[in-house]
Amino acid sequence: MKISVIKIGGNVIDHPEKLEKFLTEFAKLEGAKILVHGGGKIASGLSKQMGITPKMVDGRRITDAQTLDIVTMTYAGLLNKKLVAKLQSLGCNALGLSGADAGVIHADKRPVKTVDYGFVGDPRDDGVNTSFLATAIKTGVVPVMCAITHDGEGQLLNTNADTIASTVAKAMSSVSDVDLVYCFEKKGVLSDPSDDDSVIELVNPENYTAYKDKKVITDGMIPKLDNAFEALEKGVSRVVIRSSNDLLEPSGTEILA
Amino acid sequence: MKISVIKIGGNVIDHPEKLEKFLTEFAKLEGAKILVHGGGKIASGLSKQMGITPKMVDGRRITDAQTLDIVTMTYAGLLNKKLVAKLQSLGCNALGLSGADAGVIHADKRPVKTVDYGFVGDPRDDGVNTSFLATAIKTGVVPVMCAITHDGEGQLLNTNADTIASTVAKAMSSVSDVDLVYCFEKKGVLSDPSDDDSVIELVNPENYTAYKDKKVITDGMIPKLDNAFEALEKGVSRVVIRSSNDLLEPSGTEILA
Repeated sequence: MKISVIKIGGNVIDHPEKLEKFLTEFAKLEGAKILVHGGGKIASGLSKQMGITPKMVDGRRITDAQTLDIVTMTYAGLLNKKLVAKLQSLGCNALGLSGADAGVIHADKRPVKTVDYGFVGDPRDDGVNTSFLATAIKTGVVPVMCAITHDGEGQLLNTNADTIASTVAKAMSSVSDVDLVYCFEKKGVLSDPSDDDSVIELVNPENYTAYKDKKVITDGMIPKLDNAFEALEKGVSRVVIRSSNDLLEPSGTEILA
Repeated sequence: MKISVIKIGGNVIDHPEKLEKFLTEFAKLEGAKILVHGGGKIASGLSKQMGITPKMVDGRRITDAQTLDIVTMTYAGLLNKKLVAKLQSLGCNALGLSGADAGVIHADKRPVKTVDYGFVGDPRDDGVNTSFLATAIKTGVVPVMCAITHDGEGQLLNTNADTIASTVAKAMSSVSDVDLVYCFEKKGVLSDPSDDDSVIELVNPENYTAYKDKKVITDGMIPKLDNAFEALEKGVSRVVIRSSNDLLEPSGTEILA
């Protein structure tokens, strides 16, 4: 068995036409699969409507108790269930999951160092209930995972969706071949940010160092690629960064260990 | 295998101490079990905070698109995940489910007659994915079901939690013995509403007719009991109406066909 772990974020979630196309293609994707989704702008929109100003430090949302309630409502509730209902209508037997459900992802509340991020959780590498996921997948169920986890002591935690995807991919590689696909707004990792077609087809540790030295790969792409290399080291067979528009096409940037 | 289907409503959900006690006892309840929960006051509170006035006709909430989003957020998101995280901390392997998840409950949007209830769903008697639930239960998983369903065509629907409980109980009786327990604020069906200890221990079709004729059983209790008798006719082994405070005690009113 091979499992594809596909991650989508705000660039798909916040655009109904893109989301429709993506979900239609995801439903068609053959073989065992897991969808991991971020939150998009929905939580900020709801906060605003409720008169709550999101707290940010260094561009990261601080999750106080009220914000945790809002992200739990929007990610695990509204968004997750809309995705599940849509996939069900496309013949895909989706099962929405937070990390608390069936103890699927156990996380630790991030310790306070210089910044107190509040109710933010970092998943444990050994915190994935692989047997539940494997059993579900074997019966044709497609897990659809939001970025909410729990600490096992009754506390829900807000978690980065990229990290959920790589944690699940690494853990499932103990029971299956796993492909990890990060879908985003560009066609892949670009060598020239102003040219959407300048996709780097392959990143390996050698050219990665060179691209970083030459400042071709910078900023937000570095943690994504560091994550990808770590996933490969921990047993994931293949990591791809691709446009959410091209799920079924052989396309994007492949990362090789 | 025997499965206990336990339903709780606002009287437990809206009171943190009662909820804590109930969940602790539910976690201890032996054997296979399913929890079905209503929504309590949380959706109305959120609507108010967002400046939306809930629309009511004949005491029933009208579910327009905005209200559907709110109940999906609060029931399937916030409340369901809080219950699941708490149960996980009590050693109960809870799995939160809306009716869309794994196609667990297929419903039909209620047809418009004199009143348009909006996005309200009536579950199909043959709309329960009993094999998914049975497989999950066999592996020790405890389904925790909120009162949101779907129509199989991508539409989420707001559904009565009592109806979810009886629909699931009836469907699961095709694969197992099923007890259905409605937990509410009183100790059972009372013969004297002013005396909390006047519990009618047994209701059967004969005394039910007599109690109704004498106006001992009236109003909101009648649909609950009609539901109970229907569940017994459709294969449920035992129906009990009991205080949420006495889950583990032999107590309350037993309904016998």
